[in-house]
Amino acid sequence: MPATALFYGLSAFPLTPADDQGRVDTNTLARLLDRLCEARVDSIGLLGSTGVYAYLTREERRRAVAAAVDCVSGRAPLIVGVGALRTDQAQALARDAEAAGADGLLMAPVSYTPLTQDEAYEHFRAVASVSDLPLCIYNNPGTTHFTFGAELLGRLSEIESIRAVKMPLPVNGDFAGEIAPLRARTRFAVGYSGDWGMAASMLAGADAFYSVLGGMLPQPALALVRAAQAGDAEEARRIDATLAPLWDAFKVYGSLRVMYALLGILGLGTAAPPRPILPLGSDVQRGVASAVEPLLDR
Amino acid sequence: MPATALFYGLSAFPLTPADDQGRVDTNTLARLLDRLCEARVDSIGLLGSTGVYAYLTREERRRAVAAAVDCVSGRAPLIVGVGALRTDQAQALARDAEAAGADGLLMAPVSYTPLTQDEAYEHFRAVASVSDLPLCIYNNPGTTHFTFGAELLGRLSEIESIRAVKMPLPVNGDFAGEIAPLRARTRFAVGYSGDWGMAASMLAGADAFYSVLGGMLPQPALALVRAAQAGDAEEARRIDATLAPLWDAFKVYGSLRVMYALLGILGLGTAAPPRPILPLGSDVQRGVASAVEPLLDR
Repeated sequence: MPATALFYGLSAFPLTPADDQGRVDTNTLARLLDRLCEARVDSIGLLGSTGVYAYLTREERRRAVAAAVDCVSGRAPLIVGVGALRTDQAQALARDAEAAGADGLLMAPVSYTPLTQDEAYEHFRAVASVSDLPLCIYNNPGTTHFTFGAELLGRLSEIESIRAVKMPLPVNGDFAGEIAPLRARTRFAVGYSGDWGMAASMLAGADAFYSVLGGMLPQPALALVRAAQAGDAEEARRIDATLAPLWDAFKVYGSLRVMYALLGILGLGTAAPPRPILPLGSDVQRGVASAVEPLLDR
Repeated sequence: MPATALFYGLSAFPLTPADDQGRVDTNTLARLLDRLCEARVDSIGLLGSTGVYAYLTREERRRAVAAAVDCVSGRAPLIVGVGALRTDQAQALARDAEAAGADGLLMAPVSYTPLTQDEAYEHFRAVASVSDLPLCIYNNPGTTHFTFGAELLGRLSEIESIRAVKMPLPVNGDFAGEIAPLRARTRFAVGYSGDWGMAASMLAGADAFYSVLGGMLPQPALALVRAAQAGDAEEARRIDATLAPLWDAFKVYGSLRVMYALLGILGLGTAAPPRPILPLGSDVQRGVASAVEPLLDR
């Protein structure tokens, strides 16, 4: 797997099902991963925000990675989230992921005390220094509340193993106006997340889309990305429109809660989100079931 | 210690000195706590944000509480921060704190996935259900990014053991206009944090101030609070003015980084903040030393 291919196309982000003590259910995880491999997603983003990495211990994250490598090895490249509040923890997680056979790393600048640009730089540099795996910067201000300045991304681009950035949707919707300067300033493959921006970002020429829905229902996400990659804007927008009710639910309830609802609706598992995050109420779940119904092959 | 007295006056928040592996230096911690007891602060807020609770393991937090109880027992009431991302973790920390001999709990709604109001309510309810200790809600949007609605605070006030709230400084500076409705809606003792608002909040009639500087230099913080409690606005403002250069440093560099600098400047310890948080540069440290110089008895 050349690093240059790792951060392109559709990266699918599955849940990490676990019990109420935070112990990962590796059987259900393998079931989710099998679906992604069979659909031929371009990569799997294990232990992303949707994979509730922040809520799992190092040991459980190690168990999840080992189970995922067993399941997907040779079928899809595996990108593993190694974000942690402490630099030494993130380094340990990066070592664990590499030792277990991951293909790449994804890391958000998780913080409690807000970090400076220099602190984030040193954090990434320290983690990149302990692993040879290609790393994608996980720029997710919705959860980390950290904002990467353009200069910081430029400095991080000088670190050999840092190869990609996963961006939040631009507030003004101007993907092209963001991608061009990012490419001018960095060597990074530029991807986005925030599923309702999947069509627009890929049509604007993004290299990758890091998709929550793709981790549960890979077919429509993959069809959308393939259409956009082929330059078929009409088809990409048509598929996007069929997903609009789900995007609406993502925006109102948070994509993570919707995914846990879908896990049950699709009969794939019974895991609940880690508390304090609560399952959606039954009325909302019925709405999610209606939104997803037209997407299912019967 | 009646619960009603616990959340009043000056609560001093010390650092939790630790090595670069996150192992707490209980000797240096005891040295800091001794200073607070000798100054006769009204309470000690162990393992607050300044006590880097978010960066320490359960075991190290347990060690810190045990060392603190040994040091301060009978000399100052001990409030212990039990915030954690997972509800079960926060419950375990509350049980640990109570078993070790803490007098009260302080808890922030720490989150990665942003929490709903209901989720925060259930999180507090669950933690309050495992301990009889009085609990103070730690409303700290600067680190948690969670905003308590007025209705949520009202609901939390119905939980018997939740007795107080630690508020961020009001954006519009109108303490009185915030305290009155809070008192109308809740049974809580109302306190504030953000040290540059210490004089204004206490003069406006707040019940408590949760102070970062008070955890390192208790005398000026205590003198300010005592003046305000006595209604001596002129003296409170005079002391506040002597602290202005420190407040400026807090605003620019973050109070946590300034406190680690002060630890060294005062010759009290050599601990650095947990990485990724970096120590201040030597030029900034010299500025902090100048700001604190007039406050020291020589």
